[in-house]
Amino acid sequence: MNQSSLNVGSQRSWTTRRDKKAGQIAKVQKLVNGRVIPTEKIVEVLETLITSGDCVALEGDNQKQASFLSNALNNVNPDKVNNLHMVMSSVSRPEHLDIFEKGIAKKLDFSYAGSQSLRMAQAIEDNIVEVGAIHTYLELYGRLFVDLTPNIALVAADKADASGNLYTGANTEETPTIVEATAFRDGIVIAQVNELVDEVPRVDIPGSWVDFVVVSDKPYQLEALFTRDPRQITEMHILMAMMAIRGVYEKHNVQSLNHGVGFNTAAIELLLPTYGESLGLKGKICKNWTLNPHPTLIPAIESGWVESVHCFGGEVGMEKYVAARPDIFFTGRDGSLRSNRAMCQVAGQYAVDAFVGSTLQMDADGHSSTVTLGRLAGYGGAPNMGSDPHGRRHATDAWLNMITEESSIARGRKLVVQMVETFQQGNKPVFVESLDAIKVGKDAKLPIAPVMVYGDDVTHVVTEEGIAYLYKAQNLEERRQALTAVAGVTPIGQRNDPEVTEKLRKAGVIAFPEDLKIKRTDAKRSLLAARSIDDLVDWSSGLYEPPAKFQSW
Amino acid sequence: MNQSSLNVGSQRSWTTRRDKKAGQIAKVQKLVNGRVIPTEKIVEVLETLITSGDCVALEGDNQKQASFLSNALNNVNPDKVNNLHMVMSSVSRPEHLDIFEKGIAKKLDFSYAGSQSLRMAQAIEDNIVEVGAIHTYLELYGRLFVDLTPNIALVAADKADASGNLYTGANTEETPTIVEATAFRDGIVIAQVNELVDEVPRVDIPGSWVDFVVVSDKPYQLEALFTRDPRQITEMHILMAMMAIRGVYEKHNVQSLNHGVGFNTAAIELLLPTYGESLGLKGKICKNWTLNPHPTLIPAIESGWVESVHCFGGEVGMEKYVAARPDIFFTGRDGSLRSNRAMCQVAGQYAVDAFVGSTLQMDADGHSSTVTLGRLAGYGGAPNMGSDPHGRRHATDAWLNMITEESSIARGRKLVVQMVETFQQGNKPVFVESLDAIKVGKDAKLPIAPVMVYGDDVTHVVTEEGIAYLYKAQNLEERRQALTAVAGVTPIGQRNDPEVTEKLRKAGVIAFPEDLKIKRTDAKRSLLAARSIDDLVDWSSGLYEPPAKFQSW
Repeated sequence: MNQSSLNVGSQRSWTTRRDKKAGQIAKVQKLVNGRVIPTEKIVEVLETLITSGDCVALEGDNQKQASFLSNALNNVNPDKVNNLHMVMSSVSRPEHLDIFEKGIAKKLDFSYAGSQSLRMAQAIEDNIVEVGAIHTYLELYGRLFVDLTPNIALVAADKADASGNLYTGANTEETPTIVEATAFRDGIVIAQVNELVDEVPRVDIPGSWVDFVVVSDKPYQLEALFTRDPRQITEMHILMAMMAIRGVYEKHNVQSLNHGVGFNTAAIELLLPTYGESLGLKGKICKNWTLNPHPTLIPAIESGWVESVHCFGGEVGMEKYVAARPDIFFTGRDGSLRSNRAMCQVAGQYAVDAFVGSTLQMDADGHSSTVTLGRLAGYGGAPNMGSDPHGRRHATDAWLNMITEESSIARGRKLVVQMVETFQQGNKPVFVESLDAIKVGKDAKLPIAPVMVYGDDVTHVVTEEGIAYLYKAQNLEERRQALTAVAGVTPIGQRNDPEVTEKLRKAGVIAFPEDLKIKRTDAKRSLLAARSIDDLVDWSSGLYEPPAKFQSW
Repeated sequence: MNQSSLNVGSQRSWTTRRDKKAGQIAKVQKLVNGRVIPTEKIVEVLETLITSGDCVALEGDNQKQASFLSNALNNVNPDKVNNLHMVMSSVSRPEHLDIFEKGIAKKLDFSYAGSQSLRMAQAIEDNIVEVGAIHTYLELYGRLFVDLTPNIALVAADKADASGNLYTGANTEETPTIVEATAFRDGIVIAQVNELVDEVPRVDIPGSWVDFVVVSDKPYQLEALFTRDPRQITEMHILMAMMAIRGVYEKHNVQSLNHGVGFNTAAIELLLPTYGESLGLKGKICKNWTLNPHPTLIPAIESGWVESVHCFGGEVGMEKYVAARPDIFFTGRDGSLRSNRAMCQVAGQYAVDAFVGSTLQMDADGHSSTVTLGRLAGYGGAPNMGSDPHGRRHATDAWLNMITEESSIARGRKLVVQMVETFQQGNKPVFVESLDAIKVGKDAKLPIAPVMVYGDDVTHVVTEEGIAYLYKAQNLEERRQALTAVAGVTPIGQRNDPEVTEKLRKAGVIAFPEDLKIKRTDAKRSLLAARSIDDLVDWSSGLYEPPAKFQSW
């Protein structure tokens, strides 16, 4: 083998990315002041810095949106900049899809499209958006370092100094992850900031990772997505929450957990200081949390239930409360929350006993999805946490509790708990013969159906009827039978065989409220530690400042 | 429910961690100069800053060791500082266990104990070390944000400025992750640095996350763990590498991958520019990598096979080569590598098609472990990547290729490939009736046996006999049969039934070299693109500077 004939290395450039970046930055020198882009020049600068076909990461977080930059991108001339490959964890603003209609962008890799889910499904069907793939957050972050490394990152922060040091305050979210992947492979990082300051309160992202900052015309968009008004918690939610506390948390000694956002989990949070306390569980369960600063967690924190909370992002209105509780929350030297979406997903995936979520549809095998007909909402982060991480090796009581076989090689499992009422609003059954996700996936020509959580990962299903301990089922048939027993009068529930149910009940594969010593009639709203947003404000000693839309006063 | 009777919040302090930190820092003011601890004062400062029982994260990375700080910790007076709870990803230096013998430390949460594995097993049996748990890297990082948040972090960096900004150069590794978890929950961060400078070449960790820096008496320990000398690659390694390239990478169209460190995978890396090229595979497979800068990857990079490499850490001797190849590696503005162990683990877990590793023992069900009698080595990162991440939703050819069932809910799988010779050195069979890990786990009273990769996650086993495509097996019995067919004359291989083998071969569940159109006699060392460290240096045009122990000249 002649080595020199193979060695083509010497004939190529190894600095094409770096050279391209230097060339692009040189072109904008007359438009910028050092690292600062004048606000009114942003469109012209983007037209100069971005090359058609570039891979562009546009920060659409769950809550925080780089809204000034997305508007600016939507205003570039498509003759100058087109066919971009967008990488966005969240598609949440109209211009996020407008840029595809105008031809500025062509290909899209994303995770979540909550508020744009209807339009997204249509845009894919109409070939306006070419989907690379739909991801969970963590896999999209991983791909930023593998095969989706951006040429350009457009991100949002609160403040910057003239050296480009960024302060994100409570809403650090995924900004450091996007910036790291871009900056360290010779991409160009542009941050919109609400304010330029002489010195940032703390450095969330070092200036040597940032190329340009631009003061936005108005503060970045920020949504309060994790606020649930206790007024909307029903007695059915409360009954299910009581079952979860007794039949899951207490039974398995759940120490650390993630809650999805929903009224079922909000009810659990609000029952800990009342019902949970009456069971003598304080200090015994639910100590360490990975979740955003849910206002409904305030009473449990104030009552001394919670030892720690690590957050994916912030929550509007919770800033002062969080800053006043540094023993519980991760905060910086400036006193405000430090969130980190990537690391919180890792923690939520690998370090907690239980994930507790909800869904819109579940089939007979326990597969579930929040995708409904005509709406392609994507995944977000739930599947990262709503699955058993096979790389986990550390043991906790709850994890070991899931072992059902006698084997010298047995390992534990993460608790993946789905809490669903048997019917959605509008009398639509949650338990269905076939998930809408299958049809939506076919219509959008996706390679797999967009299933949120697969049945084989689900350990518990809690409905208003009872709990199915799916991890205990000895085979697929028994799993199906257990599900029918808690599926009420839905099509799946109607398959139930009462004799089998009685057998499964004795074997502990299913439990009804009475088996857990819970009286249905005890599930009253008076059990909630807070029954309104106003109550939450009181619990927080006025530190929680709910956004206007949640204020009844 | 009387709200005020529940509200105990007003009666407690919510700033105990912050107050404790402020108090400890105040105590050392007369010993330090601003953020700088004088080198000779380090023991006294540690004795003052650390409280008995504290949770202390001591950076023992895979390669990089905070060796000055671990020595200093080993020299504190156990009467003053004792019963520490140590969190260390790697236990690699004698003093890492000495501190337990002296009583300075008591409890240990860790991931890996390679060079200390023998002593570790003994220390556990003797109750000198109380093990919290043994983790994979990613779950340990996750727990830093949940229930193992350090009071004190002792980390290592190359340079610092007077404001505490840290430059880690190529060896960023896990330092930012440990520092973030500690700094943002009012822990104290102390970094040893090789040098204090006026301005760091780039900021890897912002000074506002760091409390103290101390110039070490000598540079931190750094091991070249990912260097494999091509001289030690045998024809058996080459045969197996040829099978992997044809029977796995080409067959499944593997685009992105992680290689463990070993001679089998080194052989693959060195065959890509020769054998791989002769198959016309260049530009078609193996483009995006998550792995450390393996010197054996140089020929593939120089030949144009590799589009990107993201690294867990650096590799001694590869600094100049990496810096000269920024199109391939993630590098900073200063030109040097930026590694990040946590994000590379995430990428290796979630974003690549295939994990290719090796093991010391495998049982009849495909469970494997590198734990052998009397040695408790821990896990490192392999199980994160050597398992199917159920939260993955994006599809690639390779991932979809693993689907064997007809179902509207089917999903793909990650390729988890184990490459093992049927016998280890010393004629010990690799395929065994029972893993040593089971006995070691019992002796150390671990809650589960320390299995590295579970059989149900393994999709392919490659031996010198052939490939078992375990993902294609229709049931456990067929999996076992397939394994026996490639297990040679080991105890497991002797269970083989030639008739069943023939059936499985026709069904494509196993393949022998001839089925892959590979002649055993073609597996020659002359196929290796580099046959010595010297060849690798040549390929790198002299940029690779191997450590002395690998130099034959």
